[in-house]
This record gives sequence, structure tokens and C-alpha cells, in this order.
Amino acid sequence: MKQSKMLIPTLKEAPKGAEALSHKLMLRAGYIKQVSAGMYAYLPLAYRVISKIENIVRKEMNGIDANETLMPAVLPAKLWEESGRLETYGPELFKLKNRHDTDFILGPTHEETFTSLIRDSIKSYKKLPLILYQIQPKYRDENRPRYGLLRGREFIMEDGYSFSINDTDLDKIYNNMENAYRSIFNQIGLSYRTIIGDGGAMGGSDSIEFSAPAAVGEDTIVYSDDSDYAANLEMAKSMLEPGQSHPELQDITKVSTPNIKNISDVAKLFDTDKENVIKSVLFMIDSKPVLVMVRGNDEINDVKVKNYFDGSQLSLANEEQIKEYMGTNINYVGPFNLKDDIIVLADNNIKNMHNVYVGSNEDGNYFANVNPNRDFENVSYNDLRTVKEGEISPDGSGVLKFTRGIEIAHIFKLGTRYSKALGANVLDENGRQKPVVMGSYGIGISRLLTAVAEQQSDDNGLIWPKNIAPFDIHLIPVNVKKDDQVKVSNEIEKGLLDNGYEVLTDDRKERAGVKFADSDLIGIPIRITVGKKATDGIVEIKIRKTGETIEVKKEEVVNTVQILFKDLK
Amino acid sequence: MKQSKMLIPTLKEAPKGAEALSHKLMLRAGYIKQVSAGMYAYLPLAYRVISKIENIVRKEMNGIDANETLMPAVLPAKLWEESGRLETYGPELFKLKNRHDTDFILGPTHEETFTSLIRDSIKSYKKLPLILYQIQPKYRDENRPRYGLLRGREFIMEDGYSFSINDTDLDKIYNNMENAYRSIFNQIGLSYRTIIGDGGAMGGSDSIEFSAPAAVGEDTIVYSDDSDYAANLEMAKSMLEPGQSHPELQDITKVSTPNIKNISDVAKLFDTDKENVIKSVLFMIDSKPVLVMVRGNDEINDVKVKNYFDGSQLSLANEEQIKEYMGTNINYVGPFNLKDDIIVLADNNIKNMHNVYVGSNEDGNYFANVNPNRDFENVSYNDLRTVKEGEISPDGSGVLKFTRGIEIAHIFKLGTRYSKALGANVLDENGRQKPVVMGSYGIGISRLLTAVAEQQSDDNGLIWPKNIAPFDIHLIPVNVKKDDQVKVSNEIEKGLLDNGYEVLTDDRKERAGVKFADSDLIGIPIRITVGKKATDGIVEIKIRKTGETIEVKKEEVVNTVQILFKDLK
Repeated sequence: MKQSKMLIPTLKEAPKGAEALSHKLMLRAGYIKQVSAGMYAYLPLAYRVISKIENIVRKEMNGIDANETLMPAVLPAKLWEESGRLETYGPELFKLKNRHDTDFILGPTHEETFTSLIRDSIKSYKKLPLILYQIQPKYRDENRPRYGLLRGREFIMEDGYSFSINDTDLDKIYNNMENAYRSIFNQIGLSYRTIIGDGGAMGGSDSIEFSAPAAVGEDTIVYSDDSDYAANLEMAKSMLEPGQSHPELQDITKVSTPNIKNISDVAKLFDTDKENVIKSVLFMIDSKPVLVMVRGNDEINDVKVKNYFDGSQLSLANEEQIKEYMGTNINYVGPFNLKDDIIVLADNNIKNMHNVYVGSNEDGNYFANVNPNRDFENVSYNDLRTVKEGEISPDGSGVLKFTRGIEIAHIFKLGTRYSKALGANVLDENGRQKPVVMGSYGIGISRLLTAVAEQQSDDNGLIWPKNIAPFDIHLIPVNVKKDDQVKVSNEIEKGLLDNGYEVLTDDRKERAGVKFADSDLIGIPIRITVGKKATDGIVEIKIRKTGETIEVKKEEVVNTVQILFKDLK
Repeated sequence: MKQSKMLIPTLKEAPKGAEALSHKLMLRAGYIKQVSAGMYAYLPLAYRVISKIENIVRKEMNGIDANETLMPAVLPAKLWEESGRLETYGPELFKLKNRHDTDFILGPTHEETFTSLIRDSIKSYKKLPLILYQIQPKYRDENRPRYGLLRGREFIMEDGYSFSINDTDLDKIYNNMENAYRSIFNQIGLSYRTIIGDGGAMGGSDSIEFSAPAAVGEDTIVYSDDSDYAANLEMAKSMLEPGQSHPELQDITKVSTPNIKNISDVAKLFDTDKENVIKSVLFMIDSKPVLVMVRGNDEINDVKVKNYFDGSQLSLANEEQIKEYMGTNINYVGPFNLKDDIIVLADNNIKNMHNVYVGSNEDGNYFANVNPNRDFENVSYNDLRTVKEGEISPDGSGVLKFTRGIEIAHIFKLGTRYSKALGANVLDENGRQKPVVMGSYGIGISRLLTAVAEQQSDDNGLIWPKNIAPFDIHLIPVNVKKDDQVKVSNEIEKGLLDNGYEVLTDDRKERAGVKFADSDLIGIPIRITVGKKATDGIVEIKIRKTGETIEVKKEEVVNTVQILFKDLK
């Protein structure tokens, strides 16, 4: 392809507002252009990268007998009413109406669509298992789209759905899918980690998240420095810390504590550490009041609380709700004299606390010398706190470290969450109706460009791994007014094309400096420069990643390139 | 691919509501499934057909240096405000808001998006010409979606846009595009005709429409039985019929004609033919009143009227508007005593009428012996009527015939309609700002399935042309409980796969009748049946299109298939 015929609008400076390195580089290198906040045009180079990724995904999906399909992006709201997600999905759901006032949404994911397809098409277990997938733009009305392709309102996903008659078949498909995904990311040339994901987010049980380490990543990944354990911060299990072995329990006393504003104030007042104070917070889960307690130096983990309830809507109680249910204000909330309808949860570590301080549930007073095991009634103890860096890993091996990651893929065992809601039943071997057992699997295709660019780039521009680079070779005749350079360049181009390489030839009448700078920005793995030595039949080959250059005779170009590509990732 | 692993939900009967043959067959053969009115799921077989079509399109587009891109489907309404189309596009435009109350539309076409991309990316003629395209679902909020994939609310289009500094370059690209499109449809194996399209519909000048003959087609195609002339009914030019050579002009007289309801009533009352009565109709064009006259036996051609004005909004005047502007009711409208602001248009043939009848523009009266040339003032004569079958072709060669066609593609010379509106200027050779000259080009990808299925199918099912068939070969071991059949089938499958054929193997435990019926429905070009004679190493090859069958030894299958495929279309 001649560069003069391609739209590659490189820029000297990234437009304002681009913060992430990958975003700046993709804008500067002419890969993407914002059409509206969080919605991007994939320009020709980016589209070539996307296509290559999609083809790797297709090959792997077909390899595990997944069928490619394509569903509408505009979905009847009714389907989402059936699953209950129209209510619970929240403000990220784009909604619209057609001219006849029928309600639609723009699909952020397609569990309902595929479940209803199977419900209407498959009547017997004999037709199962089936795996379906599609590659398609998805929609999330993000409050604040960020970092270019990382968190957009319209983004390309591969989403797959499996249907089987039992958990055994689901497990098999889930494993195949995990392996296929691993193979995809290995082929793409991306560094990634699999971690324990939040399966509850899709209403299922197990889940594995694929996370690409990157500073710009929005997820905190927790991993053990001495084992394979890795999880999203929200999902990382907390080890129970050993309590005091023979504590001497003091008598509980009410103490006047006016003007308390937070846990620190309490600790200060009682001249103790925050870990000797109990933090009590009132939440609303699906409009039910829930009191949650953790140690004063811990943070409540929302996701753990939510998953405890299979709960869909979790929010902090507001001032009015606290007054209504607790009868006190936010600073004195505690697990005492509660109304019957209030559920009380406490983190496991609360049980081991002795002679500590906790709100009295009465304005202006705290209790001192509280011993939860002795003094609390009707409390359910669970793992509810967020782990901290340096703690012991929940598998007992090593201590926890934190890092940042981009969620690039996620696989879920959904079980019967959607098939039950939508009535997707089939007859089993015994002629009985059974809800199909489902899995769902997704790769953030467009987001992968961000992940790769964050991991592999330098100050001069992008550096694409060979399997997804927009072209294999960037061929640069330095001066297209020189006949010998053009002639040698044409010969080399032909030789490379004949050998199946994809070549971008910079036939532009630009200065050498502009051509080289653009070439580095664009980030094609190998650059071949046809300059003054073309007269002697000599050209320069440069590896974008390492910066290494070698001079070769024009006749040796194809061979050299073949050898270089073998070693390149 | 094993059929047991694919979702191919064939049906005995087409669901209610499917009228068109192609729609019924695609539903019955398990290719598509309705998700909501006018929005379909492309199931695995259909997606394979779509992919093959897309790849043919890509190859041809890349061959003329068109760059593949991908734009958002959700577009800022602001862009369409700039072009004026937000107002004029009408109720087919899907509209929505994001959470911050910003207005968006779902793109039915992308002239504005690409124009703004070029406006923001290209500053000099040196970077032109450029051709960009994408393949993407498009949206039209059809009042009444019909015929499956023919007229849907979400459908897949290939849409291309060209940008050049002058008309010469546009003409070159336009020709290349026409040839590329011809090549695409030839490869697909579709019968089509190029006709004169309504260029005004996109705000440009010339346009060529590609139309696939099909009974279910929504367009009437007019063509000469003796020349290449072909046009959409709306665009077919009307020949001027010769008038009476020396007419004797009578004196105009007002005649009381109460209770007239239509042209037939007038003709009857005056005991004459409808062709001696003038039909006068008041239209509103962008809220301006326009009186249009044709002969009583002719029909007014809306598109011709609209294009006369470069007008965007055309509607019949309602009762109130007729009263307001004409002072009479609908049955007596005529070109007399008109208010100054009323534009009067008449079809060319009106000029040749003599001593005819026309409304007096006064309730209850008609004028007789009207001679337009003598009696009408300030009338502009133009070609405004719809042609009729049997008329002389406008190129003078042959008579016009009518047929039905599906619009499968359309190419437009847009000129500067969009670049001017959006300010997409570049510097020309002389350093002057010039609006870029544009073309737009589109293929209705998903609709092609309908066109092919309408043209090529029989009572038993679909018959796919070889280049877009979901598989090349349908391999059917009749009884998968018989080891020899399975063994021979596996051998043949391997041989075919090794030779690059795509094979669907019906490994299902179904009765032979079910397998054969499904095979005919699905419509793969060649079927290989491995039945009882497998013991002797003999199988049957059947050509779906002709029904021809031959028996061959299993060793000869690959050779035979190769020969058969050469002859197949």
C-alpha cells in the first residue's frame, strides 16, 4: 500500500485532554480520532490492527467449535425487563425509543439476546452443548469516558455464550475458553495475568479475569509474591488475623463523646489506635437497610457486601435513611437497640476484637470496652474488608502485592441465572424440562490496542507486536525524486509482497526527517530505508523495537526479513 | 465443521408474518431470527455468507486503494445539524440522548462523519484524493419493516466516501467504484442492472443505482426493450408527445360543475377522456405553496418535483392550506387568479393541450376550452410526470418496459454539498481554500442475501452461489450408527479439507429424510451422500442447483468436486 493513498493524519502534538500515553500516541500516530466523548473513529491503521486481532480471535473461537453470529446492537428493552437488568443495570445503559414509542436499549452485553435465541430455537439436550459468539460494538453510557479506547461509550467486544445441559459440560467449555483466550493473548503478544474476577457482576459464580499490567489500568490487582494467587482488589480474600488468646473482658460502658466526626476522632479521644474502634456503616441493598461493621483501620469492600446478598443495588444510606432506621446521626451509628428489620453484618475480624469502641446508636455517645462476641446480637460474620498490601496471601503462601491492570477479558460461569429468568429450558435425557446451564465470555477488542500501546511503546511512538501490526514492513524511499531510490524501493516492495509480507511504502514527497519521525510514531515492526546507497544496491533495515539497524544488499532483503521476523514477537 | 456443533434451527413452516419467499426460506433454513421488528440475528450460516460477501467487497475496495475504517454508529446530532439533515431526514432517524442530555442519532449513513474527519485531518490538496470506507450496521427507523433483511431497521452496509480536489479526480474514482461494484456483484453471482438513480436523494448530481431484478423488489425499474436505457421509475425521463399541428382554439368558458370529486367525474361530465382534463395539485415545498399540473391521465412524479427545487421536504397541501392559498377546495384547484406567492409548474405535455378542461380555482366551477399556451400566466414547464409502460424510451430507441428490482447498491457524485455545509476545505495548488469534492458509495450487504435468495432458490430451499455459500460441501453420512459410513465420510472430509474446501458434515443422529430435507433447505452447492454403498467405497454427489446426481468412488471425490466447482456459478 502506498502511504500517499492512506489517511494517516499524524500530529506533532497530542490534542488536549489526552492523558494516557497510549491515547496520546494513538492520536498522534493517526490511528484514532474522537467523534464524540468516548466514541472514536478507527482510522485505516487502527482498523488493520483491529482486523488482525479479530482474525486471531476467530481462529481460536472456531477451533473450539464456537459459531460466529451477529446480533442487533439495538435491543428491545422488554428482553432486559425479563432478566431484571433493565432496572438494575444503572445509568450506563443507553435507552431510546422507536417512532412507535417502543423502548429499546443499546446492548452493553448480550446475555438476554442469546438466551432468548436458545429458548426459542432449542428444545432438547441433544442439540447441546452450543457455543455462540460475535464481534460487535457495544455501548456503555460512561459518566466520564477516559483514556481513549480504554473506557469508551462505544467499543468493540468479542462476546461469547455457551449453553449446556449440565455443569460438567460448562466446565469443559469454560476451560477450553480459558485456553483459547490465553492463546489469543499470547499470539497478540500481550503480557497478562489471570485473576479471580467478580463473578457476581454478571449474576454467576466463578469467573476468571484476564488483566494486562499497565500503569493506566483502572483495576487494582492483588497478587502473592510467592504463589499463583491473583485477584481483583474487590475479590481478594482476607485472611483472618489471629486474635488475643486470653483476653480479659472489661465491662461495657457508655461514654459521652460529643463532636465526633470520624473514626480518627474516636481513636484520639480514647487515646487508642483506629484498629480498636469499630466502623459501622449503614447501606441500602435493594431498599433494605443493612448495617456493616469493619475494624476502624479497614475499608468495607462493597463488592463483597453486594455478593453476600446476590444483591444488585448497593448504596450508602443517606442522612434521612440513617435517621429513619437508626434513630441517630452518621457519627454515632452502632449495632445497638436496632429495629427488627435491620440486617447486621460484620467482618470476620470483628469477632476477635476485645474491649473496643463502637457507636452507641444514640446521638453523642459511644460504648467503650465492647466485646463483640459477648455484646452483639444477631450479627452475621463474613469476609467484608478490602485486603491491604503486605498482608499474608489468602492461600497462605507469600504476602500480597498490589499492581495496576487493564481488564482485557473475562469469562463467567453464569449457571442458570439467565435461563431461569427467561425460561430457556430444554428436555433432558429423562424428558424433564431443565434450564440450560450457561457461560459468558468476553474480550475487549478495541481496548486491547490501549493495553498493547501501554505495554509496548517508547517516546518516539508505538511499537506493534508482529502479529497485530498494521503492516509488516515500512518501506521508505528517502527521496522519491531520485530514480534509483524509487527503482530499488519498487524491486524490494515486489519481492516482499510476493513473499506474503504486508508493506506500507512511504511514497510521499516529504523530508527524510518527517518520514522517519512518522515511521517511528506508526510503529511498524521493521523499517527498510532506501537512501543514497541505493546506487550501490544497499539498503538499511531497522527493527523498531530495539532500534538495531543493519545494511544489506537489496537481493538479501527478503531473506533477512524472514530471519528477523522469526525472532520478533 | 460438524453440524451437531452448529446452531442451525431449521423449521418445517415459516413463522407467520413472513411474506417474501427469501424471508420464509431464510427463517426456515435457520439463517436468521427476528429479535424485534426489522432487526435480525444473523445465525451461524448467515454470518458465514455475510463474511464471504464482506471479504469480496474488501478485496475490491482495497484494489482501488480505498482504506477500511470504522466509525461510531452513535453520532452526535450536532454533526447532522451542521449539514441540515437533522431537520430534513425525517422520522426514519433514530434519536437518543446520553446521560448528560446530549443529543445523538444512530447513523443511517455517514457523509457528515467522514466529511468532518477530512475537514479536521486534511489541509492540502496534496493529501488527496482519498477513498475511505467501512462495513457496519446502519439504522433506519422504518415505519413498517418488511421482507426480512430487505427493509430492516438495523442492516449491514458497506459505505464509502471519496475526497478529491476536483471533478476530474471524482469522475475517475466514481468510474473505478462502478467497476469495483460490478466485479463484486459478478463474483457474488447476482443478476443485476445499473440504472439512473435519484442523485438528488443524497444532495448530489449524478448517481448510478445497482438493482437486482426480483418480484419482491420495492422499486419499479423502467428499461427500454431496444437499448441500454434503464432508470428508476422516479427518474425515468418522459418524452414530449407531439401535439395537434393546427388546433382551432375555442373561447374559454366558465361552466358550473357542482359535485365534482375527481378527474373522472370531470371527464364524464364533459363527455371526454381524462387526457383532455388538467390535473392541478397543490404541494408544499419547504412550506412554500407550489401548484403542479399534469394531464388528467398522468401521474405527478414527486421526485421530479422535489429535484426541480433541490427541495428537501415535499408534501401534499392539506385542506386548510388549499383554502388559505387557493381560496377554493381541492376539487376546483386551478391556475387562475392566483396569489403572487404561488409557484406554478406544469408538465411539458400540458403545453400541447388544446381546448381542455381545468379547475377555475373557484368553488363549483371549471373552465372549458382552456388553451394553456394562451391562457396560463407565469407557468414553468418541465418534465414532471411519471412515465408509463409502452411509451417511447427517452433515448428514442425502443419502448419502455417495467420490472421490479431491489436496490443493492448506489453510487453518488456528491460534489461539494457536504464539504461546503461542514467547511471541509483544503488549499489548492494556488494556495486558495477550496471545498473538497466528494462522492459516496454504498452496498446493502445484508440485503444482498435477500436478493440472492429471491433470484436463486426453489421450493425445497435456498441455492447459494459458490462464492458466498456458507460451506462448499455438505457431507452427509446417512446413518452415523454404521461404522463404514462414518469411516468413509471421515476419509472424504479429510480429503476435502486438505484441498481447501469448507465442509459441513451432518453427523446428527437424524433420519435420512430429515437430513436431506435440511440439506436442500440450507442450500450448500454440492452435497455428498455416504449411504449403503459406502461398503463398496461408492458415494453420491448431488448438485443442489440442478439436482443432478452422480455416483463416484470415494477416491475420486476430490477430483470430481474440483471439476464440478469449475462449472458452478
